[in-house]
Amino acid sequence: MSIHSVSRNQSHLVWDNSIQPILRVKSGDTVKFDCLDASNGQINPETTVTSVASLVFSNLDQVNGPIFVEGAQPGDTLKVEVLSIETADWGWTACIPGFGLLNDEFLEPALKIWKLNKKEGFAYFDEAKGIKIPLNPFAGEMGVARKEKGPFSTIPPYNTGGNIDTRHVTAGATLYLPIEVEGALFSMGDGHAAQGDGGTAIETPIVAELRFSVLKDRPYTKTPHFRTPSINVSDEKYYCTTGIETDLREAARSAVRHMVMYLEQEYKLDHVEAYMLCSVAADLRMHEVVDMPNYLVGMMMPSSIFSQQHN
Amino acid sequence: MSIHSVSRNQSHLVWDNSIQPILRVKSGDTVKFDCLDASNGQINPETTVTSVASLVFSNLDQVNGPIFVEGAQPGDTLKVEVLSIETADWGWTACIPGFGLLNDEFLEPALKIWKLNKKEGFAYFDEAKGIKIPLNPFAGEMGVARKEKGPFSTIPPYNTGGNIDTRHVTAGATLYLPIEVEGALFSMGDGHAAQGDGGTAIETPIVAELRFSVLKDRPYTKTPHFRTPSINVSDEKYYCTTGIETDLREAARSAVRHMVMYLEQEYKLDHVEAYMLCSVAADLRMHEVVDMPNYLVGMMMPSSIFSQQHN
Repeated sequence: MSIHSVSRNQSHLVWDNSIQPILRVKSGDTVKFDCLDASNGQINPETTVTSVASLVFSNLDQVNGPIFVEGAQPGDTLKVEVLSIETADWGWTACIPGFGLLNDEFLEPALKIWKLNKKEGFAYFDEAKGIKIPLNPFAGEMGVARKEKGPFSTIPPYNTGGNIDTRHVTAGATLYLPIEVEGALFSMGDGHAAQGDGGTAIETPIVAELRFSVLKDRPYTKTPHFRTPSINVSDEKYYCTTGIETDLREAARSAVRHMVMYLEQEYKLDHVEAYMLCSVAADLRMHEVVDMPNYLVGMMMPSSIFSQQHN
Repeated sequence: MSIHSVSRNQSHLVWDNSIQPILRVKSGDTVKFDCLDASNGQINPETTVTSVASLVFSNLDQVNGPIFVEGAQPGDTLKVEVLSIETADWGWTACIPGFGLLNDEFLEPALKIWKLNKKEGFAYFDEAKGIKIPLNPFAGEMGVARKEKGPFSTIPPYNTGGNIDTRHVTAGATLYLPIEVEGALFSMGDGHAAQGDGGTAIETPIVAELRFSVLKDRPYTKTPHFRTPSINVSDEKYYCTTGIETDLREAARSAVRHMVMYLEQEYKLDHVEAYMLCSVAADLRMHEVVDMPNYLVGMMMPSSIFSQQHN
């Protein structure tokens, strides 16, 4: 079992099965990836909000790779064990015009630069108000090449993974991806220090160690599957808002909108702050999808991020 | 502070603000509700699957009430503290033709009668296979009358609550509902012994104690909000499947379909059993709703329900 390295400049900007692999590994090998943040280095700790409007979108969401895994054949499954993820000591969260669940209501660019306290595992959202976010680093992008020829944007996720932006694939998790081309051609990137289900994240450079294995006995893996690490929770409570609509997306938007209203009123956050806090800390869950014609989506905010509980 | 009682025959079949209250209580009072299951007594422990096809739909999902809460005015918020919920010692789960997220794929009626081990807090799904579901009782229906005149079905939830089917409003939770008519006119029912986020439940008769308070300082409560009780979890893991589609509902359907395939293959469950297990035990969560045009929904199955772990 060998250990390999991928450097931050070994990246590509689209999924395309014609991109030549930068590395060949054996099933069971480990690869250490050094990844820039999802802005591809366009944002740094000194960046201000005026730069958000001038981000070059075509350079965003680069992924490092691709890795050719020997023995991987179409129809096999790639098992990716997330051994470790280390963030930088800073991160960023932005409202980028046109992006996000409420992008038609949050029209102005906004940027927050975070200091990440890696030793104690949290980042202050607002130190004076005693609001802090626990760090749970993961990679937003992990995927393999698609069988279809040609370039595919790295922004949306596909059945082969990619920008899955799933907050549960932290260190200790295992991801299973359906292999569509010989060698799998795995790439990753988009480091996140924390994120809620459905949200946008605290973006950050990361160093990640992943172990790859080729599995022949999981033909039913047709979309990404994953196993979480052990979860231990003590005395956590949630405050939840809901959205009830005939359309699931509108129900989700309503749940977020009501959480924003709640946070503005009770925690005296401004409108954009409240929206950002939802993104990085709260989960969107489908509480009810069977009682037609109305869906009910909940946004669940953990109470432990607040040092003082409000109404 | 008084304690009142509502009996199982004090129920109604639609939300309608012209239904006369069966009880008047003061803010701070407690009411003990004795509720039949959501079939309104049509299903009992001896019922077989042949009866599912002949269920009288217009008698389903009755709610007990309404309760007039003195001092409650439109624009106020009704605080409902869930003090206790006790189930019967049996329950049922059905595939009812036309109902459910995959109702176009599960066309045949099916019925499962459960024995609920209330003392130890679980129900066997399959004793021989060592699959058991922890009991987390809650009421699927809790709501107040709508301001609009006329009858409204009790099947869908509304901004005023009703069939919210939200598994987190267990004993110890607090629900906040927007009041639209004088006296609030609260009703409840639809006892559940367990359910996943988004699923259908183990249906059961319940006895529930609820405490009501009228709040004047929450004008932002425009949909149901709730606070969960303290959650303590030790060493839980999840196995997760995902659905990735341009439509959120299709993404949810895909996530369930892939979990069904996984359970059939690895746990040797039949197709309908696997679907029922998803409903009562697994959660639907919106992992990613921002990377357009594709949404990613996850179905998260807790590993602890299985005595033996598979692939």
